[in-house]
Amino acid sequence: MKMSEGVEWALHSCVNLAWSGPDRAVSAARLAAWHDLPAAYLNKQLQALARAGILTSSPGPRGGFRLARPLGAVSLMDVVAAVEGPEEAFRCAEIRRQGPGAGAPAAEGADAADCAIAHAMSRAEVAWRRALAAQNLDEIRQQAERQAPEAPQRLRAWLAAQ
Amino acid sequence: MKMSEGVEWALHSCVNLAWSGPDRAVSAARLAAWHDLPAAYLNKQLQALARAGILTSSPGPRGGFRLARPLGAVSLMDVVAAVEGPEEAFRCAEIRRQGPGAGAPAAEGADAADCAIAHAMSRAEVAWRRALAAQNLDEIRQQAERQAPEAPQRLRAWLAAQ
Repeated sequence: MKMSEGVEWALHSCVNLAWSGPDRAVSAARLAAWHDLPAAYLNKQLQALARAGILTSSPGPRGGFRLARPLGAVSLMDVVAAVEGPEEAFRCAEIRRQGPGAGAPAAEGADAADCAIAHAMSRAEVAWRRALAAQNLDEIRQQAERQAPEAPQRLRAWLAAQ
Repeated sequence: MKMSEGVEWALHSCVNLAWSGPDRAVSAARLAAWHDLPAAYLNKQLQALARAGILTSSPGPRGGFRLARPLGAVSLMDVVAAVEGPEEAFRCAEIRRQGPGAGAPAAEGADAADCAIAHAMSRAEVAWRRALAAQNLDEIRQQAERQAPEAPQRLRAWLAAQ
């Protein structure tokens, strides 16, 4: 099981948009160039973030993407759900209702939530989602700045020179 | 992001092997037939469980799969790792080291663990893995039997009739 690389791209792009400042919209092409990413595919992730209300998108030659709300109001879960979709990783196909193992029709009133396996897998996934929801991107930005204090200014200088 | 359907198959197969009893090896074909699954693909998952030490596999016309240890000693995490592999779902590609955003060479001594994003994503995934590791398959078997008390006997009767 592998999460899309678009999640990493989207998370870095949100931090980069915080660093670029609220006064400037940044195009997908420039956000992509900053980390040498394919612009068309990054644009797809940025559009997903805009649909999720994490970014705003403006058209035109000076258009681009901005943060729609402060990074402190964006959790890892928000970004993962925007890029990967809201479905759980484990999807019960109800195989226990197939074949001779399906048992008596009387049991058919039960739904997937009653399957002990689906229930246990879902409970574990909730722990993951809670942990993703508990971390906001401003905490991540602060940690990134402690490691690379010059990064915000370097990005703004590069954008100004484009 | 989607977990392989093989995880659901493998989990149900472990419970079914507990129900079939320790004295009987059950072939992949019969385990598959019980839930109307493709036998070749289920066999691949069962072989993965055997490689992980969850099942034993014996050859020959009366051969098949048995539990290698009690269900209480098999966690959801054991089965997920056997089928999906040990890698984390989020894999940092270190895009922050690419393009103009890569910054000064001085920063290159740092490794992926230093990336604030990789670190935060990994921390959330640890919460998921801990929750998977905290649930063993015997708890799941017990819950399944409360919902379908006749299931173990039904499976044994069906196997005996094959």
